[in-house]
Amino acid sequence: MKITDAKVIICSPGRNFVSLKIFTDQGVYGMGDATLNGREKAVATYLQEYCIPALLGKDPQNIEDIWHYFYRGVYWKRGAVNMTAIAAIDMALWDIKGKMLNTPLYNLIGGKSREKVLVYTHANGKDLSETLEKVGEEIENGFFAIRVQSGIPGITHTYGVPKDNKPYEPAQKGLPHEDYWDTSKYLNFAPKLFQKVREKYGEDLLLLHDVHHRCTPIEAARLAHELDPFHLFWLEDPVTGELQEGLRHIRKHATTPIAIGEVFNSVYDYTTLFTEQLIDFVRMPLVHGGGITHMLKVASFASVFHIQTGFHGATDLSPINLAASLHFDMAINNFGIQEYMPHQAIVNEVFKINYRYDKGFMYIDDTPGIGVDIDEKAANKFPYEMACLPVNRKNDGTMFYW
Amino acid sequence: MKITDAKVIICSPGRNFVSLKIFTDQGVYGMGDATLNGREKAVATYLQEYCIPALLGKDPQNIEDIWHYFYRGVYWKRGAVNMTAIAAIDMALWDIKGKMLNTPLYNLIGGKSREKVLVYTHANGKDLSETLEKVGEEIENGFFAIRVQSGIPGITHTYGVPKDNKPYEPAQKGLPHEDYWDTSKYLNFAPKLFQKVREKYGEDLLLLHDVHHRCTPIEAARLAHELDPFHLFWLEDPVTGELQEGLRHIRKHATTPIAIGEVFNSVYDYTTLFTEQLIDFVRMPLVHGGGITHMLKVASFASVFHIQTGFHGATDLSPINLAASLHFDMAINNFGIQEYMPHQAIVNEVFKINYRYDKGFMYIDDTPGIGVDIDEKAANKFPYEMACLPVNRKNDGTMFYW
Amino acid sequence: MKITDAKVIICSPGRNFVSLKIFTDQGVYGMGDATLNGREKAVATYLQEYCIPALLGKDPQNIEDIWHYFYRGVYWKRGAVNMTAIAAIDMALWDIKGKMLNTPLYNLIGGKSREKVLVYTHANGKDLSETLEKVGEEIENGFFAIRVQSGIPGITHTYGVPKDNKPYEPAQKGLPHEDYWDTSKYLNFAPKLFQKVREKYGEDLLLLHDVHHRCTPIEAARLAHELDPFHLFWLEDPVTGELQEGLRHIRKHATTPIAIGEVFNSVYDYTTLFTEQLIDFVRMPLVHGGGITHMLKVASFASVFHIQTGFHGATDLSPINLAASLHFDMAINNFGIQEYMPHQAIVNEVFKINYRYDKGFMYIDDTPGIGVDIDEKAANKFPYEMACLPVNRKNDGTMFYW
Amino acid sequence: MKITDAKVIICSPGRNFVSLKIFTDQGVYGMGDATLNGREKAVATYLQEYCIPALLGKDPQNIEDIWHYFYRGVYWKRGAVNMTAIAAIDMALWDIKGKMLNTPLYNLIGGKSREKVLVYTHANGKDLSETLEKVGEEIENGFFAIRVQSGIPGITHTYGVPKDNKPYEPAQKGLPHEDYWDTSKYLNFAPKLFQKVREKYGEDLLLLHDVHHRCTPIEAARLAHELDPFHLFWLEDPVTGELQEGLRHIRKHATTPIAIGEVFNSVYDYTTLFTEQLIDFVRMPLVHGGGITHMLKVASFASVFHIQTGFHGATDLSPINLAASLHFDMAINNFGIQEYMPHQAIVNEVFKINYRYDKGFMYIDDTPGIGVDIDEKAANKFPYEMACLPVNRKNDGTMFYW
Repeated sequence: MKITDAKVIICSPGRNFVSLKIFTDQGVYGMGDATLNGREKAVATYLQEYCIPALLGKDPQNIEDIWHYFYRGVYWKRGAVNMTAIAAIDMALWDIKGKMLNTPLYNLIGGKSREKVLVYTHANGKDLSETLEKVGEEIENGFFAIRVQSGIPGITHTYGVPKDNKPYEPAQKGLPHEDYWDTSKYLNFAPKLFQKVREKYGEDLLLLHDVHHRCTPIEAARLAHELDPFHLFWLEDPVTGELQEGLRHIRKHATTPIAIGEVFNSVYDYTTLFTEQLIDFVRMPLVHGGGITHMLKVASFASVFHIQTGFHGATDLSPINLAASLHFDMAINNFGIQEYMPHQAIVNEVFKINYRYDKGFMYIDDTPGIGVDIDEKAANKFPYEMACLPVNRKNDGTMFYW
Repeated sequence: MKITDAKVIICSPGRNFVSLKIFTDQGVYGMGDATLNGREKAVATYLQEYCIPALLGKDPQNIEDIWHYFYRGVYWKRGAVNMTAIAAIDMALWDIKGKMLNTPLYNLIGGKSREKVLVYTHANGKDLSETLEKVGEEIENGFFAIRVQSGIPGITHTYGVPKDNKPYEPAQKGLPHEDYWDTSKYLNFAPKLFQKVREKYGEDLLLLHDVHHRCTPIEAARLAHELDPFHLFWLEDPVTGELQEGLRHIRKHATTPIAIGEVFNSVYDYTTLFTEQLIDFVRMPLVHGGGITHMLKVASFASVFHIQTGFHGATDLSPINLAASLHFDMAINNFGIQEYMPHQAIVNEVFKINYRYDKGFMYIDDTPGIGVDIDEKAANKFPYEMACLPVNRKNDGTMFYW
Repeated sequence: MKITDAKVIICSPGRNFVSLKIFTDQGVYGMGDATLNGREKAVATYLQEYCIPALLGKDPQNIEDIWHYFYRGVYWKRGAVNMTAIAAIDMALWDIKGKMLNTPLYNLIGGKSREKVLVYTHANGKDLSETLEKVGEEIENGFFAIRVQSGIPGITHTYGVPKDNKPYEPAQKGLPHEDYWDTSKYLNFAPKLFQKVREKYGEDLLLLHDVHHRCTPIEAARLAHELDPFHLFWLEDPVTGELQEGLRHIRKHATTPIAIGEVFNSVYDYTTLFTEQLIDFVRMPLVHGGGITHMLKVASFASVFHIQTGFHGATDLSPINLAASLHFDMAINNFGIQEYMPHQAIVNEVFKINYRYDKGFMYIDDTPGIGVDIDEKAANKFPYEMACLPVNRKNDGTMFYW
Repeated sequence: MKITDAKVIICSPGRNFVSLKIFTDQGVYGMGDATLNGREKAVATYLQEYCIPALLGKDPQNIEDIWHYFYRGVYWKRGAVNMTAIAAIDMALWDIKGKMLNTPLYNLIGGKSREKVLVYTHANGKDLSETLEKVGEEIENGFFAIRVQSGIPGITHTYGVPKDNKPYEPAQKGLPHEDYWDTSKYLNFAPKLFQKVREKYGEDLLLLHDVHHRCTPIEAARLAHELDPFHLFWLEDPVTGELQEGLRHIRKHATTPIAIGEVFNSVYDYTTLFTEQLIDFVRMPLVHGGGITHMLKVASFASVFHIQTGFHGATDLSPINLAASLHFDMAINNFGIQEYMPHQAIVNEVFKINYRYDKGFMYIDDTPGIGVDIDEKAANKFPYEMACLPVNRKNDGTMFYW
């Protein structure tokens, strides 16, 4: 069996998506997600100029070999652009394998470990009272697990909170928007927010919160400690994770579970985090984490240390990645939770999906492979438009983490 | 899809083998190896009394779920009897999956990462000069990698050395034979043996040696240090591995690579060994290591620390395990080497095999699933006969490691 | 002196027990417990097929040698089936030694270190109020130390809580029952339970609680921290102990003492736990922990780190094990507490016991050896019936720890 | 002051180079190197699509702010494509700063710490005897420090050794060439090579050697130990550095200094390496290491642990990077050595350089800024041609590190 061709499809139904389609001499093709929010074209070039020519003629069945061919072949290993390109190839190869063997992806990576996939949604309000309202709405939508973000008194625009009444989407057309940030205000506010949420909605709701990399290690330790009484399901990205050791302080002072990884791309980002048990959930998505082949290894490694998955699942990843993630979530034992931020309706004009949400859980059907296809004609109607994630500055103008 | 029946087949074509056959409502059945040398009937009872009744009605596609059902379901986790039973189930389920999807096992666990599997053989002589001769014979048989064991001056019977001119087989009919051991004599002899082998056959030959758990940590450090100049491919089981920390001394004093694991059965036997990088090769076989599902996780965990596989492959494991191991060896990237000790011809009257040896490498064909079947009529001709591995005593009668 | 015969007796007076009886040429016989809850027949086969033939002719006085003969002789060391078989042999040999010397077991392993054995009992209620009642009843029964487990709001059946008004027995006839579990609900409830118990019964009562392996390391740290104000005597099995390192977080956040070990079987399960002082009590019972010979070494090692014993003593172990444990508890200095869950009356039709409970303590008489005998005729009236411990699934169907 | 425009120039005088030119409203422009060997166009797209639009209007004097703008602004931090783009911007901004202040770069980052820059060259032969000859030639060329690589008996093409009589260049036109590798042959040969070099050329010559990531940790420890008697200046990339812990074994067994980093791009690649003192030289080049701004911090951090620089300086980096490196080498105190592999003459038709080699040292003149300019007309004569670094397979076909 041979790969005969491959192409990159960039489209922008509401937001940019990069997809990879790999063709074979058996008539079967595979789809992979290659979307790297705000850097889409770098991945597209990487695939078009370097990976696609090297794929031609290879046997798509030998996924492990092809994975290592691209991972080791680049010399400059790891990195988001590189690992996203490899992930797209890997997903497309698993999609082909499933289609060739006429079976859904989950059946190839362990079979069903559960009947449905627990997801969490986002409740975002411009202030405490609107946030409380939004939490209530999502409870009515059936969610058991809700990520709560709120506008902070004294900070105009806060991460995770929509500016108008549109659905929240952090990337904006054109160049990065510059936001303002003040950790001190945030640290004073966050525990009050969760106190109110618990008071209003009780102790059973699974609550999540995203710090978005903005605390120093000792600030994060304070925050996690002060959130302990509200029993969060997880606290996400409390520090910028490049310094793996930065999480040690939190673990000394708090028992709030920690989730990290949405900006990571390699198993080597986790050696200290796992072996020192500094985190509880891995958020690295398939699409940036080198695909299914690599993430199966990361999840296995995590499982030894009783660490679960909680994949990033914002709208900056295409339905192909979401479907692949749901297969993965269905199959592995140490699945924890899946982020679910529904794509806008317009996205489904381009991507034909095989999953659905119902009462707090996601379900995926038995379409062979990953099961999401792209309507290329529809895709052509939505040409790429540059859009970037914001940047942050402190009050004095200091460039800060976003 | 449902499991409709399962049965245990015990036969003894030259030596005892326990096999598990799982039947499904789709007509397809799967084969797994359940042989635990010298404790065969304990595993058979375990399967017959507890596992088979619980398998009936389960969907054989959900391998991950079934693995955890038996692993977690027993409460008394880990242990060779338990993990061998789980391994047999797991192998049979993967065999079924391959047959249902009409594809060889290796294609389900990554595809081909290589064209052929490097194996090592055994050269055993009753004394130094016969051992040197045997090494020469195995070189003529095409082997690049040879495990060298020799009779030791002053020790009548030594592990790894046949007593008569028969092929070596440590298990003997009836109760355990009592051997005699003297580490001191062994430590004085072993470096001389390898000096002679290197002098006669040069530096390119890959040499392996098995200490068979018989050194204390500091004895092992001395031995490994004194073997350093002869550049072994690996030194196997230098200490008894129950005390994971026992390998630390070796690593301080020697750079001879270390292989361990043929008596282990759980990923938790490796947490210290891997994270402290105390070993270089994992020898835990699929059949005792919980099967393919578990060993994929162990191999993934190992790969992060640049540790390779080198599976136990003596004749005490059935052709089903050998074939499954060869699929595994073909598919994973961090394969190192495979032990190969050919079964006696009589074994192949019972087991129909799909692999062959040629010039230092093993090859496996594309039969769907694991690809080894059992001829039950032929099996019935060789009823179980109790056979045990030896025990060791020191000169004064002290019970020692074998 | 020689062993002339041995036999395995399986009976089921209310629940299954496996006993080993070793006969000698001096007319004296010894009794050992070989019960492994839910896997009884695997141990029986192990003993019948491999151990009993090897015992014949051996001198029963050489207990240390025989222990190592079976421990080292199996090659596949450790594991519950194996270690339970060895434990049964070891107990029977100590029983013989006591009878030959006409002295109770405790007199052979140190003599009396105390006059009576502190025990704890179980108080289990279907909800908070019933549990409080049951605690009161056990106080009236004279217990100073009570393990408190309660039904949890939102979870139908909880570990440790009887379903009807029968005495609690987790193993059920036939295949494993599938239970449902939700750690989140449990974590919210447990501190409230102990707050109420302390409010109602004061601070002097020794309170114990069993988490039954169901927390991740960070969940366990939260729980232990929130239980700190209620000064538990111990928190049992807060995490699944296979990952010894999993207890480190608890030690950072809580001073509640930790007990672990009822699913362990080897001294090598404790190297990290002891040397890092991660636990305070060893719960590994004689019957699964390789018998008296091995447990004396484990207890010695524990004493170096000021760790005490607190043996598992549920009804899934026979009166032989309970009596042997009481001798052990009487003799060693670092005894902590003994679990005591009385067998149903029917059990004592088969086993003739030499111990009694009175006002919070157990007493054992001076019958030589272990002092428990079996009435084989009575035993024959209760033939083996398969019974299994339950398994647990999460809400979405995920296989979980039980 | 404002940035008014920027453009990417890709040219291929013998090999591909990517350069960034930033224009300002003061007439001054700056040059940066953006070459990522074998992935050139991915960086070009990254710059063109995302960085250049964001640069326009910014004040080029605020280098620190701009560095953080791009580093933090991308969200997907680190990674070779990203960090190379940032490095190009950073170099160009420092070039502008130097030109605006009419002073050479070294004068802005500390002034001169030395008069000349110690460099090492490459001596590569197809076999031991040719390699010895080449070492002699380079001694005659005045070099005090020589990296010695040699063809290995039994391996057709070896890293670092030219195939024909052309200057060595690992990247080849078109898709990756597949090479063959056998670590075992290499390990046997390398110590002999250095024994001969020392025998022939004495002990004063500074000898370097590049393992090119191809050893496992224990193989690297053996090699370093066996090279100890030959007193290498350094051993480079003994293991693949993704697993920082992989260098621990070497440090236990050898005192040969270790250099690493040519495939790294972030200060976070060094936290374990520096704090555990696992390396002695940092080889991360400015062009892949985020530029001058970031590398000043890496060098500062290194200096705390008495670690020196030894920057990668192969021909896969443009003269702009080489000149910038020489300024850096001149200015910092903990400079160790600089790799120097002369560009082919044709390269200097495009790049106008300000440095020269003389008797073992490099010298850079006082041209303001970095001091290298590009002749765009000349550049246009050499259009980009795809070229890739090789990949490696082992004898059985296993994909291996190159």
